[in-house]
Amino acid sequence: MTRTIFAAFLLASASPALPQPVPPQIAQLRDAALHDDYAWDIVEGLTTEVGPRLAGTEQEARARAWSVAKLRAMGFANVRVETFPVPVWVRGAEHAEITVPFPQPLAVTALGNSAATPPQGIEAELVGFDTMEQFEAAPDEAVRGKIVFVSHAMARTQDGSSYSASIAPRSRGPSVASRKGAAAIVIRSIGTDYHRNPHTGVMSFAEGVTPIPAGALSIPDAEQVQRILKRGQPVRMRLVLTPRQLGTGESGNVIAEVGGRDPDAPPLLVSCHLDSWDLGTGAIDDAAGCAIVAAAAKRIMDIGRPLRPIRIVWFGAEEIGLLGGEDYRRRHGGQPHYLLAESDFGAGRIWKVDSKLGPARVEEARALQRALAPLGIVPGSLDVAGGPDISAMIADGHPGVSLRQDGTDYFDLHHTPDDTLDKIDPETLRQNVAAWTTMLAVLSGGIEPEPKRPRRR
Amino acid sequence: MTRTIFAAFLLASASPALPQPVPPQIAQLRDAALHDDYAWDIVEGLTTEVGPRLAGTEQEARARAWSVAKLRAMGFANVRVETFPVPVWVRGAEHAEITVPFPQPLAVTALGNSAATPPQGIEAELVGFDTMEQFEAAPDEAVRGKIVFVSHAMARTQDGSSYSASIAPRSRGPSVASRKGAAAIVIRSIGTDYHRNPHTGVMSFAEGVTPIPAGALSIPDAEQVQRILKRGQPVRMRLVLTPRQLGTGESGNVIAEVGGRDPDAPPLLVSCHLDSWDLGTGAIDDAAGCAIVAAAAKRIMDIGRPLRPIRIVWFGAEEIGLLGGEDYRRRHGGQPHYLLAESDFGAGRIWKVDSKLGPARVEEARALQRALAPLGIVPGSLDVAGGPDISAMIADGHPGVSLRQDGTDYFDLHHTPDDTLDKIDPETLRQNVAAWTTMLAVLSGGIEPEPKRPRRR
Repeated sequence: MTRTIFAAFLLASASPALPQPVPPQIAQLRDAALHDDYAWDIVEGLTTEVGPRLAGTEQEARARAWSVAKLRAMGFANVRVETFPVPVWVRGAEHAEITVPFPQPLAVTALGNSAATPPQGIEAELVGFDTMEQFEAAPDEAVRGKIVFVSHAMARTQDGSSYSASIAPRSRGPSVASRKGAAAIVIRSIGTDYHRNPHTGVMSFAEGVTPIPAGALSIPDAEQVQRILKRGQPVRMRLVLTPRQLGTGESGNVIAEVGGRDPDAPPLLVSCHLDSWDLGTGAIDDAAGCAIVAAAAKRIMDIGRPLRPIRIVWFGAEEIGLLGGEDYRRRHGGQPHYLLAESDFGAGRIWKVDSKLGPARVEEARALQRALAPLGIVPGSLDVAGGPDISAMIADGHPGVSLRQDGTDYFDLHHTPDDTLDKIDPETLRQNVAAWTTMLAVLSGGIEPEPKRPRRR
Repeated sequence: MTRTIFAAFLLASASPALPQPVPPQIAQLRDAALHDDYAWDIVEGLTTEVGPRLAGTEQEARARAWSVAKLRAMGFANVRVETFPVPVWVRGAEHAEITVPFPQPLAVTALGNSAATPPQGIEAELVGFDTMEQFEAAPDEAVRGKIVFVSHAMARTQDGSSYSASIAPRSRGPSVASRKGAAAIVIRSIGTDYHRNPHTGVMSFAEGVTPIPAGALSIPDAEQVQRILKRGQPVRMRLVLTPRQLGTGESGNVIAEVGGRDPDAPPLLVSCHLDSWDLGTGAIDDAAGCAIVAAAAKRIMDIGRPLRPIRIVWFGAEEIGLLGGEDYRRRHGGQPHYLLAESDFGAGRIWKVDSKLGPARVEEARALQRALAPLGIVPGSLDVAGGPDISAMIADGHPGVSLRQDGTDYFDLHHTPDDTLDKIDPETLRQNVAAWTTMLAVLSGGIEPEPKRPRRR
């Protein structure tokens, strides 16, 4: 598309009474992206050739090396890594069993930053609570020296809104348990599936609280424990969790660019996170996101040069506390960005577009809505945008766009061994690429073909 | 139902031109069973209070004690255990990882009767085959000293017919691998799901073949290994499997009865298996079967006394080689049985009835088909019946009935950690109980109310 056509499109869009049709070039880019293979190539490669990539570990370093090579091979400019230090916690042995009254093993995994039991584990009475509120209301003497089990009810939601409502047993449970003198805590996994795959996830002990072993049971196991507890007999559990804190390691953000025709224009930042939990291969969380945003940028680059630069950021160390986003903000938060966007909610269909481009850019936001509509994407808020690694910068005042994925099944897989490539539907991945490509086409200021270089013989 | 009504029903059924309606008493029993709670009570109790129950282990002994107490509490007669010796194999540590070129862990489990690696495991080159045929055709030098990976394609089928077609890598693979000089073998799990839960299952090494370590990868891991192998670089795997053969232990069949009015009449044998694999709690394989057949017998007993006795058999040690069925046949195979039936294909809806009652009892078989039709059960063969533990006796000439369950999802869960209570739909379980109750009502020769005993003050 020529710059002139694009400018006319935006200008025309400025008339609210008469929304303009989507320019044919944008529609063409969008529709061609529905046949995309770049994203599958990335997500297949990263999950196969690297696999799990826990923040601060050798595996994450291998992922960065893989990513730099990949992004360079794809032809992006200024491919680089910005490193930063991170605390490193690694999983050890994991085992739980009921010893009394009905001996049987349980599927357990340690939560990130869990303390370790001795190698042979601990055995103690198990005391159960159906909700975090029940647990917090319990007197200390009811749990002192015991292993605490905390359940909760997490609903399946399209927008993932149940996550923050259900996460207290993981985020606060271990600190509360330690304060009450518990020997350890196991929670019902924060998830919506019924497989014997526990969901890990980060937590941190509150200031001054002694770390204790903290694990998550798979949901079938959590319900089994509830059934056993409800028999009313004393229940004892043996728990072995031997994770280790390894001190400070290195993480990093992998950055790549599509140069803009205007070298001074602020970039469109499209992002994901490269690190993953260690249990699966981090396919939906978040190799898919990295694949989607890079594929979209590549599709723009394939047809020419946008007015504004596109900056791809594959954040490091998201899972252990959004540390990549923090580092980027520290380094670049003071520089203008044309928009920030992040793909980090799996590989489900995009069904809604939210944005927060500011009052002066409402027509741009509306043009984006119109261009996305043929992909089955409904217009959302014009005053909301976010993403784990970018929300702090959006709160600082940077503009943002959020292409909302359908997360109905996301918490079936999230942070489990089951987060693997086979869970990604290639067609749905392509719909994501088409949406991101459209977003970049609409907002990058117009793409012009690169001048043909004479062929060398 | 009085004996007279029932006899009239069977007599009337003998006229092929004019099939008779199902007697109201049978229809009533059938429909009442759709509200059954006995089966859920059993399957919930056994999976919660015992959990996994591997043949020959203390857990299986606890399951027998639980079952005897339960069946006595339900009011069955002659509740007893017939014990027999079994070889005992137990699982140890299990770990697999790719070490070269893309280091990452894999989800693995040992197949029953696998030999052990040293505690620290073995590391060797990995050589892969997409089918058992490819593997068998490979020259010995291609696999000698290596770890063999064998894949296969198992289709999802309603009747489970794909199981026997897909099982060769598990049943014969380890012997072939050992004969060719392989260090170990890992197969793609025999299953149809995409979860990181490997499927175990029994195998035995052929006569004279040296046992080697033999494991199954979960299906996502098996496909990951195929992707890695297809990169064309040399691949190395580390494998730790430390199961042990513990020598001879004890298993047993738990037997209970509903007395018949005719003490000399041959019994209707309804069965399942009580043992399970150790990874899950054996909910669909086969606590559900035990629950269904006992619930049906209990529902008959609740309304009166059948002409012919009903014998419930919860077989032991099915999973490790149908040893409970063998023991029963050795002890009782020479005695007449009115029919043999077994529930051991999960907890899915019954959709078809097959039987093999013999040419003289075709009208009885037809009456059974008519009585089951309102449950959505189609008439099947009149010359086929079976079940893992009873097929040998049916081959000997005993009559049999098979109430065929829908197994479309059965091999998602079969022999995995995921075989847990939450996978059972209580409504579908009730449909099973209704079908088995109907079968017993139609074929047990008529149920008469017990004479009322005078109440003692």
